[in-house]
Amino acid sequence: MRIAVLLYDRFTTLDAVGPYELLGRTPGAETVFVAERAGPVRNDQGSLALVADRTLDEVPDPDIVLVPGGPGSDAAGRDPAVLDWLRTADATSTWTTSVCTGSLVLAGAGLLTGRRATTHWLAMDELTPLGAVPTRERVVFDGKYVTAAGVSAGIDMALHLLGRIGGDDLARTVQLLTEYDPHPPYDAGSPDKAPPEIVAHWRAQPRNTAGQG
Amino acid sequence: MRIAVLLYDRFTTLDAVGPYELLGRTPGAETVFVAERAGPVRNDQGSLALVADRTLDEVPDPDIVLVPGGPGSDAAGRDPAVLDWLRTADATSTWTTSVCTGSLVLAGAGLLTGRRATTHWLAMDELTPLGAVPTRERVVFDGKYVTAAGVSAGIDMALHLLGRIGGDDLARTVQLLTEYDPHPPYDAGSPDKAPPEIVAHWRAQPRNTAGQG
Repeated sequence: MRIAVLLYDRFTTLDAVGPYELLGRTPGAETVFVAERAGPVRNDQGSLALVADRTLDEVPDPDIVLVPGGPGSDAAGRDPAVLDWLRTADATSTWTTSVCTGSLVLAGAGLLTGRRATTHWLAMDELTPLGAVPTRERVVFDGKYVTAAGVSAGIDMALHLLGRIGGDDLARTVQLLTEYDPHPPYDAGSPDKAPPEIVAHWRAQPRNTAGQG
Repeated sequence: MRIAVLLYDRFTTLDAVGPYELLGRTPGAETVFVAERAGPVRNDQGSLALVADRTLDEVPDPDIVLVPGGPGSDAAGRDPAVLDWLRTADATSTWTTSVCTGSLVLAGAGLLTGRRATTHWLAMDELTPLGAVPTRERVVFDGKYVTAAGVSAGIDMALHLLGRIGGDDLARTVQLLTEYDPHPPYDAGSPDKAPPEIVAHWRAQPRNTAGQG
């Protein structure tokens, strides 16, 4: 089983690394980070680069496609090389997945037309014009298309996928080894729970102003 | 405020990236990934390299030190260059922190002697011989020393730290923007909750056999 994680300039790191950390532990899985050009790809914060070991052309038929979000997703979603690769990879993939605004890239490639999908809460309005059906859930399955909400939601998505791929005990094993027993000291992780004035502040900002992912 | 994230061969990616993703969003913070040599540093799974933009010598006095864990932590915890840097950085740091077996590296540098600390559940027995006081909590504060349990616990640690650094509303803002509203589909994230046979299996393995972090 081959997992391809797409990188592009100004991706959000945890979108890619969260699900990678868990999915990559599947026995027999090989993960490869891919980008238009091989080499370091700089993230949204500008302070970290991940290395794409392969070009898109070198990995045409992964079993799992994973597209992170980030401020760079707008450009990636209009990049013919990225869109062509996604369509090609999707033609034979078992699972085509995204985290955060990565779903806008998938939708830009025409892969989510008529499908239920999610994205970062601040980008939810952008799914409809791209043909997807916005769905306010943390992880959305529509056939082989799996989309996760903002940034950290990719970790939950990975556990769901591990269960489908290798069964409940594989998922539980990976959850145990990564000690994913979350206890956040605040309960502000969704717009329904955060203080309303913080939610309103961010709704009033142009998107992509502050690493919204 | 400068945050230095230590990289070394065979670190666990999410240990570093989880807290980085959240802490790096602190207004005015600058994050720098450091290693003995600048350039790509390969992780435990072997399928991803993160770029260290600076050498250890170039970043002698960060405000926050973050040490990830991983199978490479044993070697890092015996590497004089790493240990010297940690002692130097710790002399002026505001917070000295670790995720997973990163605490064994801090302890190897003599920084946790007599202090309460945590680590990956499979490595808990290794704290005592290094002088630390093993503490089975997800995030442990002992003065400026903050240690998190396995892999994903670094995300919770980052929220605790954000609250201390910038106040509750900064922590809530970052939690909201990263949509950290965890809903794992399984409840197996600690040895107290996972199926006993899975826990027993992993307790019987030599440590570092399977990316335990």
